[in-house]
Parts: sequence; C-alpha cells; structure tokens
Amino acid sequence: MSRVVVLTGGVGGAKLVLGLSRMMPPEDIVAVVNTGDDFVHLGLSISPDIDTLLYTLSGKANTAQGWGRENESWGFLAALRELGGEDWFALGDGDLALHVLRSHALRHGEPLSAIVGRLARAWDIGTTILPMSDHPVATMVDTDEGTLPFQRYFVARRCEPIVKAVRFEGAQAAVPAPGVLEAITDPTNKAVLIAPSNPFLSVDPVLAVPGIREALVQTTVPVVAVSPIIGGEAVKGPTAKLMRELGIAVNHRSIADHYRDVIDGLLVDERDTPIDLPVAHAFADTLMQSLNDRIRVARAAIALADALRA
Amino acid sequence: MSRVVVLTGGVGGAKLVLGLSRMMPPEDIVAVVNTGDDFVHLGLSISPDIDTLLYTLSGKANTAQGWGRENESWGFLAALRELGGEDWFALGDGDLALHVLRSHALRHGEPLSAIVGRLARAWDIGTTILPMSDHPVATMVDTDEGTLPFQRYFVARRCEPIVKAVRFEGAQAAVPAPGVLEAITDPTNKAVLIAPSNPFLSVDPVLAVPGIREALVQTTVPVVAVSPIIGGEAVKGPTAKLMRELGIAVNHRSIADHYRDVIDGLLVDERDTPIDLPVAHAFADTLMQSLNDRIRVARAAIALADALRA
Repeated sequence: MSRVVVLTGGVGGAKLVLGLSRMMPPEDIVAVVNTGDDFVHLGLSISPDIDTLLYTLSGKANTAQGWGRENESWGFLAALRELGGEDWFALGDGDLALHVLRSHALRHGEPLSAIVGRLARAWDIGTTILPMSDHPVATMVDTDEGTLPFQRYFVARRCEPIVKAVRFEGAQAAVPAPGVLEAITDPTNKAVLIAPSNPFLSVDPVLAVPGIREALVQTTVPVVAVSPIIGGEAVKGPTAKLMRELGIAVNHRSIADHYRDVIDGLLVDERDTPIDLPVAHAFADTLMQSLNDRIRVARAAIALADALRA
Repeated sequence: MSRVVVLTGGVGGAKLVLGLSRMMPPEDIVAVVNTGDDFVHLGLSISPDIDTLLYTLSGKANTAQGWGRENESWGFLAALRELGGEDWFALGDGDLALHVLRSHALRHGEPLSAIVGRLARAWDIGTTILPMSDHPVATMVDTDEGTLPFQRYFVARRCEPIVKAVRFEGAQAAVPAPGVLEAITDPTNKAVLIAPSNPFLSVDPVLAVPGIREALVQTTVPVVAVSPIIGGEAVKGPTAKLMRELGIAVNHRSIADHYRDVIDGLLVDERDTPIDLPVAHAFADTLMQSLNDRIRVARAAIALADALRA
C-alpha cells in the first residue's frame, strides 16, 4: 500500500492534494486532473485546473486571489487592452509562459500529459500530475442564455446564467491519458480520493472519459470522496447555485447519490446534521483555509479509506 | 505632389519615418517595411521591423535601449526561463500582446498587412505602414558557422559569424502587399525614399520581392536613398562589418553602386570626404540622435528629391 490517487478539479482539489503532499511523500501521489475547463484563448491553449495544481504544488499560487501566480505582473493584459484585444480572461505575464510553452509544444504534437510532466519536473514537483486525457474534452454549460463554453460561463459571465444541463463535448471519443487507468486500478494503492471539487463541473468531466468510471468501480482499493458541502452550502464557487438550478438538494445525500456507483466512502463536514447516507461515511472539519486544514482533511480522507479497508 | 513613400528596415529607418512625420502630415507618409526578419518563436509570429515602426510612431519605443517598448516588464521571460524555455530572444510583457494578437489573426487567415493596419489604427498612427509582402520571406545568412536565420545571426549570435552571402527565402514566390506597388508608382508622390537601414540585410529583402524593384525603376518621382555610412563607418549595427566580409568597401560609393538601378539621388553625410559618386547626391549631417536630427535628415532627403525633380 503506497500511492494515493486523487481525482481533482481546480482550487479546492489542489488544496487537498497540497495537504496530502505534506502528510506523505509527494512522489506517492498521483493527481488525475480535469481538463474539461481547458480552452483556446487568443490562440493559446490554457489548462486552468492543471495550472492551479502546478502553481499550488510549486508554491507559486496566489492563494489570496484564489487563482494565478503570486507576484504576478500585468503588462501583457494592459498592452492587449490598448490594442482592443479580448481581455475578459486575465492572463498574467508569468502565467503566459505556461500557456505559450504548452501551446507551442501541443502544435508540435507533444501530448498534454508529456508537457505537464515536463513542467512539473522543471518546478521540482514530486507529485505526478496527469491530465484526465490527452484528447480535448470541452465542458459546455447549457443555460438560459444559451450554451456557453465553461470559461465563458465561469469567468466572463461569473456563473450568473441559470444552468439547465452540463455536457462534455468530445468525452466519448477521448481516451484516458497514459497512466491514468493504471494508477486508479493499482491494487497496491493506499486509496483513491475524489477531491471536494465541483462534482458536476469539475469531477464529472473526468468520469465522462470512457474507462475512468469503470476503473473506479473495478479498483480493489477504497474510493473515498470528500464532499464539497459545508453547513448546507458549498464553500466557494457555483456548486450550490448549480445544484439548485439542476433541481438537486444541496446536501451530502445528493453528493453520495451522485457518486454512488464509484465511491466506497464519503467524508462529510462535521457542521452538518447527520442524515441518512447510502454509503459509508465519516465526519471531519472539511473547511480548508490554512495549510493545517488541508493536512487535516487529507488525513481524514485517508483514515476513512483505511477504515473501509479494515 | 503629396505623399512620401519610404522603404525601411528597423531602427534607423524608423528614425527617418519619425522625422518625416514631424515635418509633414503623417497621413501623407507610406512606409514599406522589411519583413525578412520576421520569424516564428515559441509559436509566436514576430515582425521586428514592423513593430519597431509601430512603437516608434506611437511614442512607445524604448529609444535608450534601441528596441522594444518603454516601461516594459519582464515577468514572462523570467517565468519562461524557470521552465527551461528558449530565452535568447527577449520578449517583453507588453511586446507579447502584439505577437499574440498577430499570431492569432494570422492563424485565422487575416493577411499581415490587414493586421498591421488594425494595430496602427488602434494606436492612432496616421502613417500607413505596409509590410513589403503578406507572404513569408526569410532572410537567411550564410556564415562561417553555417546558414543562420536572420534573428539567430543578429540576436542569438550578435552578428559575430563571418557572413559569406545573404539570401531571401521565399522572395521569388512573394507578392508585394496590397498598396505597395501603387504607393511607389503614384506619380503624385513628393518622393520615394530608401531609409538608412542596412542595405544588404534590411532593404535588399524589400527589393527582392518581385515587382518592387521594377516599381522603383518605373516611378516618375525622384527616388532618394539616405546612405547609412557616416565617417566611413555605419552608425550602428552590422552594416560596416558585413560589407567588409562581403568584400565591399565601406563608403558611399558602394552604397550608390548597390542602389544604382533604383535611385536618382543619394544623401551622404557631410563628415565624409566627397568621392566620385555615380549618382546625384547632396550632403547633410545624417547622424540621427535627437528628434531634431531626424527632422533635419528627413528635410534634407526631401530637399534632394525636390532638387532632382526641378
């Protein structure tokens, strides 16, 4: 029993992975990351969730802001604005280096997974970061304003449109990136975790890649999700609003139902009134503000997996 | 008699165009710009001479440094370096906006000339800036270290290799950009000028685009070149070194010979001993350090054209 595999989206997921990396050797962690948010902007290929993880694990994340790099400068965006370029997506100067290098390598035929591996090594990140797929998958949000690509919904429209459905274009034709299925089904794993990322926007795209859901069902090690609900609400982001719009009750029961076929256990926040859950569960303070919080949640998730194995 | 057309390369040429734009309405100036230095770096399409002109005429040029933008920041380059990206070509954060927008538009099929027109309008540049061609032409330098693309020779190798020949790949298949031939042959022009840019590296690529040399020969208005030689040397850059390596004497006679079939007159620096020139000429202080210097040289070139017409 050595490795922990984590399915993760953006900021919330990166917090859990960071917590794990401070309670066990980073080399024993494999993050399988949502790429449904990826998009091409001004000709640049941008992978927001992968970059959030790269920045978080290399200590470069702007934690106050919640996205992007610390000590970022904005000369590019200012010049772009002067020239009438699209400025709704804030590209920092340092951040651009990732996007330019990635776009250049992708155009030369290098798979995303290989590129991410190079970037992680350049920053001495021990954790293995795997995109869910090297194939493009695009999260599309059907709203009362029409269908919006994820970043248009999330950044340009600030999650304001009312969501009717979420779709993952290209998912059916996608194949898990090299190593993803092997990592999930490795019988020597300590656990497979699903991070407290948005289940519908950030984790579902991962599960939509053919083979990944099946691998979670088949793996013989405990699969534990950390519920993103705290005190009957989502901590951050559009999770609760989205659940209401989709007609889903905002509680742990809904999360358990959503993941029912793939998880063995659910870690829920201790603030919430225990309700009848159709899956094994444990309680913990799951709010992750400090680094110690992150480590505590990581420990609690692993402890639940250990209990399920016993 | 209204417009002045200037064939130009980078920094020296931009100085002359700036001088012109302060002695006559900028709207009456057409700059036909070398694109043989253009190259693709990290997947970005870069047009150094066009950008130098854009920055110079919009007041954004870093005149102390001699290239790039004033008040530039370097967050991108620092991050690129950390990631092991190629950093031999210094891309500033603000400068990147031009390259990203241009690359994106070129990939969408917009011709370079249309893109440059948009950029110039965005910065309220009255002067018409035309790339010599919308087709790619690559200045290749045959040296004792092998054949080097222009920027490798100029920036990465700092003009140190010994030059044996200069070639313009793609020139034979290139077509002048829309408006170039019409501008040069317009009989109502006041003058056609060749800027004191490097004749072999910066002006020859323009002349290598089929039709442009012929237009210069055919135009009925005076064609005047400003010699880049001052006091038996080139003011800046590799002109003198290159001439010696090519076995060409570093003097105005060589410049006159080089342009013999296309010019009617040559403006030479008053520091130099008059020598027998095979073309009409006039003397002036051609050193351009201050804005007043630039205006003085522009006036002297136009005065020579006026004298030739009379």
